[in-house]
Amino acid sequence: MNASVDTFASHETALQALRDALHARLSQLLPEGHERDLVAAAMREGTLAPGKRIRPLLLLLAAQDLGCPAEQPGLMDLACAVEMVHAASLILDDIPCMDDASMRRGRPTIHRQFGESVAILAAVALLSRAFGVVAEAQGLTDACKAQASAELSRAAGLEGLVQGQFRDLSEGAHSRSADAIVSTNTLKTATLFEATLQMAALAAGASHEARQPLRRFAQDLGQAFQLLDDLSDGCCNTGKDIHQDSGKSTLVAILGPEAVRQRLQTHLGRADEHLSCACGQEAVTRGFVRAWFDKQLTMLG
Amino acid sequence: MNASVDTFASHETALQALRDALHARLSQLLPEGHERDLVAAAMREGTLAPGKRIRPLLLLLAAQDLGCPAEQPGLMDLACAVEMVHAASLILDDIPCMDDASMRRGRPTIHRQFGESVAILAAVALLSRAFGVVAEAQGLTDACKAQASAELSRAAGLEGLVQGQFRDLSEGAHSRSADAIVSTNTLKTATLFEATLQMAALAAGASHEARQPLRRFAQDLGQAFQLLDDLSDGCCNTGKDIHQDSGKSTLVAILGPEAVRQRLQTHLGRADEHLSCACGQEAVTRGFVRAWFDKQLTMLG
Repeated sequence: MNASVDTFASHETALQALRDALHARLSQLLPEGHERDLVAAAMREGTLAPGKRIRPLLLLLAAQDLGCPAEQPGLMDLACAVEMVHAASLILDDIPCMDDASMRRGRPTIHRQFGESVAILAAVALLSRAFGVVAEAQGLTDACKAQASAELSRAAGLEGLVQGQFRDLSEGAHSRSADAIVSTNTLKTATLFEATLQMAALAAGASHEARQPLRRFAQDLGQAFQLLDDLSDGCCNTGKDIHQDSGKSTLVAILGPEAVRQRLQTHLGRADEHLSCACGQEAVTRGFVRAWFDKQLTMLG
Repeated sequence: MNASVDTFASHETALQALRDALHARLSQLLPEGHERDLVAAAMREGTLAPGKRIRPLLLLLAAQDLGCPAEQPGLMDLACAVEMVHAASLILDDIPCMDDASMRRGRPTIHRQFGESVAILAAVALLSRAFGVVAEAQGLTDACKAQASAELSRAAGLEGLVQGQFRDLSEGAHSRSADAIVSTNTLKTATLFEATLQMAALAAGASHEARQPLRRFAQDLGQAFQLLDDLSDGCCNTGKDIHQDSGKSTLVAILGPEAVRQRLQTHLGRADEHLSCACGQEAVTRGFVRAWFDKQLTMLG
């Protein structure tokens, strides 16, 4: 085994350990699922079903790059709160009056498993729980909790995920400009990445100066992420409905897949520069982002 | 005009001033409604449409009874956050896959005005905004904000409003015991009253000892409030659908209206004792609760 393969293997092992720790803590923070408590069961299924966990991993890695001790217990709780907000948004995006999706993460969507009313209640309960987890995170200062809660509120609400979903619903079926799509992609993806990175910076006690490039990193990363998502539509290994975006006005539909791949690489390059600026050349997060996108793009073929 | 009428009139004037101030601050804290931003418009309509505002009024009055200066700016923000959570829960309770209600506060329900997807997104955005308002409330300590956020999270989520709505949906149509109904009523109503009173106590810097009777007050008040709501079903001046509870297993259906009125008075009496214990004999909140219920019961005839 040569050195680079060895390094890659040890990174993968470290990432898997983080994923396992995230899963274990999420499982603790979620309510126990009893036979009669369908909402609790839906909360668990919506959050614990195998996912990429890119947001909480980013939070943990970036916080460590910024100098936060790995053993800070509140860090894992912030990461879990972000994943809960993400899971809530996926449950809601999938319901019949939104995208009406039937598959997610390789399994039937939550409303198909538990019914629509339970799915909506589970999403609301996950969102509420996320703010509770932030408020009660151990080892963080109250000032950090208040600022983290404000960041999460902006990302989840009308300035973030909600507005992104609304625009996608109201404008997605009509022809729209590339700029309009980029703006919607920012709301749908970049705002929660932004909150994720800001929460990492808050836990690490990073300076205001270090936090600005992290906002720019999140913007470029969000664009890259959404472009990857659009490129993946039509592939059969995403765990989601195939051709869910069919008839939707996406950048792939307007510019074609090759131009979108180039755009994605441009955003990744810029994201990497911002990340170096915030966390330094040696940042573990840089390697994680590059390897993650390389792997996903290779799978697309 | 005799003294008691005069006192009543001045109380009414003071309450109306608080309601006006609440409306003004809510309007500031909510996003501006633009023609194309239906979610913002739905958030405003769901929150600003004329309501009783009993939760935020209770928060403001109880905090003052507990020694919090009326000019504390964060107090009004906490009151607005509670009203936003309440408004979000009403929007969701009314949608087709929940209670499928057509009227609320004398107007068509939010999903009838804006469509189901916008209604759900508005509720999620209101819930998110509520936590942001708490996190950014001016003049409160970070410790107070974190604890207030934790209280609100419990009340809104699986241990509170979500569970209450789930039980109402899953058990309401079947015959259930009086105990089961009381337990569901607690989740539906008492938990948010409890968070409301705890937030008042936190803003006032009340001791742990003063906070315990406030929890008991909230429990009895919540039961009284839900019983009043059940008694009101079938009346035409509630602003809601008439006979929305028809076929539902309520205490009025099991025990009859007279026994429910007696039970309501028992809860009110106990609530008053707990309130005196927490806030003293002279508490303004005592008079407010008594006058409010007297007025509602008189309207029922």
